[in-house]
Amino acid sequence: MVKQLLQKSEKGHVIATCRKPNEASGLLSLKNMFAQRLSILPMDVTDESTIEASAKSIRDRYGSLNLLVNASGILSIPDVLQPETTLLKVEKSSLLLTYEINAVGPILVIKHMWPLLKAGGGTGTDRDVAVVANISARVGSIGDNRLGGWHSYRSSKAALNQLTKTVSVEFARRKDPVICILLHPGTVDTDLSKPFQRNVPEGKLFTKEYSVQKLLGIIDHAKIQDNGKFFAWDGQEIPW
Amino acid sequence: MVKQLLQKSEKGHVIATCRKPNEASGLLSLKNMFAQRLSILPMDVTDESTIEASAKSIRDRYGSLNLLVNASGILSIPDVLQPETTLLKVEKSSLLLTYEINAVGPILVIKHMWPLLKAGGGTGTDRDVAVVANISARVGSIGDNRLGGWHSYRSSKAALNQLTKTVSVEFARRKDPVICILLHPGTVDTDLSKPFQRNVPEGKLFTKEYSVQKLLGIIDHAKIQDNGKFFAWDGQEIPW
Repeated sequence: MVKQLLQKSEKGHVIATCRKPNEASGLLSLKNMFAQRLSILPMDVTDESTIEASAKSIRDRYGSLNLLVNASGILSIPDVLQPETTLLKVEKSSLLLTYEINAVGPILVIKHMWPLLKAGGGTGTDRDVAVVANISARVGSIGDNRLGGWHSYRSSKAALNQLTKTVSVEFARRKDPVICILLHPGTVDTDLSKPFQRNVPEGKLFTKEYSVQKLLGIIDHAKIQDNGKFFAWDGQEIPW
Repeated sequence: MVKQLLQKSEKGHVIATCRKPNEASGLLSLKNMFAQRLSILPMDVTDESTIEASAKSIRDRYGSLNLLVNASGILSIPDVLQPETTLLKVEKSSLLLTYEINAVGPILVIKHMWPLLKAGGGTGTDRDVAVVANISARVGSIGDNRLGGWHSYRSSKAALNQLTKTVSVEFARRKDPVICILLHPGTVDTDLSKPFQRNVPEGKLFTKEYSVQKLLGIIDHAKIQDNGKFFAWDGQEIPW
C-alpha cells in the first residue's frame, strides 16, 4: 500500500506506521528510495498514547491528512491465538484480543486523526473528500456467513463494520469533508493468510500488488455517497 | 421472563441466574411462589468459572435444558459507562467492557450449556428443537443504523449477532437439535432504558410483560429453519 501510494504520484507525503520501525525492513528500503516523501512513525493500535503521539507528529509536520488506511488486523499468533474451528474452542482471551486490535484499534486511530482529516478534506487529490479506508473482510459479513468458525475474527470485523458505519453517520451529519469506507481486499498472499492458503480456490489468492491496486482504485474514486459502505476489491458492495 | 415461563405452564423447571441471588428481590419473591420449579443460581457472565459452575449444577440436577435465554446486557453504568454521543467520546475501556458483557458473555454461556441443550432437544416443549434466544437490539443492526452514536453498545450487539450466526452454522452442520435466534425486545421500560426513555415515541415504550409475552411467542413457535435469524418483538426479521 505504501509503495504504490509513493509510486503512483510524484508528489505528496506518505506516513507509514508500525509497531517497530527499526525492524520494518520493507518500509526502511522504501525510505531509502523516497527519503523526502515517506515518514515512518511508531504506532501500536493497542496503545492509545502511540496513536496520539502519531497524530501530534503529523499535525506538527504536515497539518492535515487526506487519506487514512487502517490496515491493522490480527487473525492468528503462533502459540497465542488460533482461529476457532468450533464453539468448544472459543476463549474470552482470544475474543478480547482480536476485538481490541481489529475493531477498537482502527476506531481510536480515526478518533485522533479526525481533525487532520477535516483539515485535509479532498485537497491535493482527485477526490472531493478525505477518505478513511478500513480494511475489513468478507468473513465479517453476517449475511454472508455460511461456513461458521473463526468466531473471534468474524465478530471483530462485524464490530469494525458497525463502528465504521456509526462514525460515517456522524461525519455525514456534521457535513465534514470526510468519508469512511470498508474494504475487503480478497484473500491476499500475506503472513496473515499464509496458514490458511491451502483452502483458497485457484486464481483466488491475490498478490499484494494486485489487491492494493484494486483497493487504491476504489479509494481514488470514492465519493461522498460511498460514505459508510463496504466494498470488495472488485468494487461490489458486500452485505452486512 | 422467569415469571411468565413459570406461569404459562404448570410443569417444567426454570433456572434463573444473576450475579447476586441474595439481593434479587424479584426472583426471591417468585421463589416463594414456585419453590419446587424455580432455581436461582449465581452467575456473572464476565467470570467464566461461574458459568461452568452453573452448567455443572444444572447437569447434576436436571441433565438437560430445552431453552436458554441470554438476557445479560449493559448500556450504561453511572460514573463508569455512558453511551457515546460522538466519536470524540469513544474510549477503549467502554468498548471492551461492553463487548465483554454483551457479546463474549452470552457466547461463553452457550459454549458451556451446549451439551445440556443437545440432551434437551425439543423434549418437554411444543417445539422440535432446543432454543437459544440471545437478546440483541435493533441498534445492533448495521444496515438499520441511521442515527449513529452509542458506539460501544451498537458494536457489541453487531458482534453478538455475528457470534450467534456463527454458532448457528455449527449447530446446523452438526445436525444438533438446537437452534439459535436473536431477539429485539423493543424499547422496554427497564433500568437499562430508563435514562433514555424521553426520546421514545408515544406507544413505543413497552411494559416488560408485553415484550416478554411477544418474545416467548416467538420462542414457542421457533422452528429449525429459524436458526441464525434475528427477529423483532413483532416477529419481523431485522437486517444485519
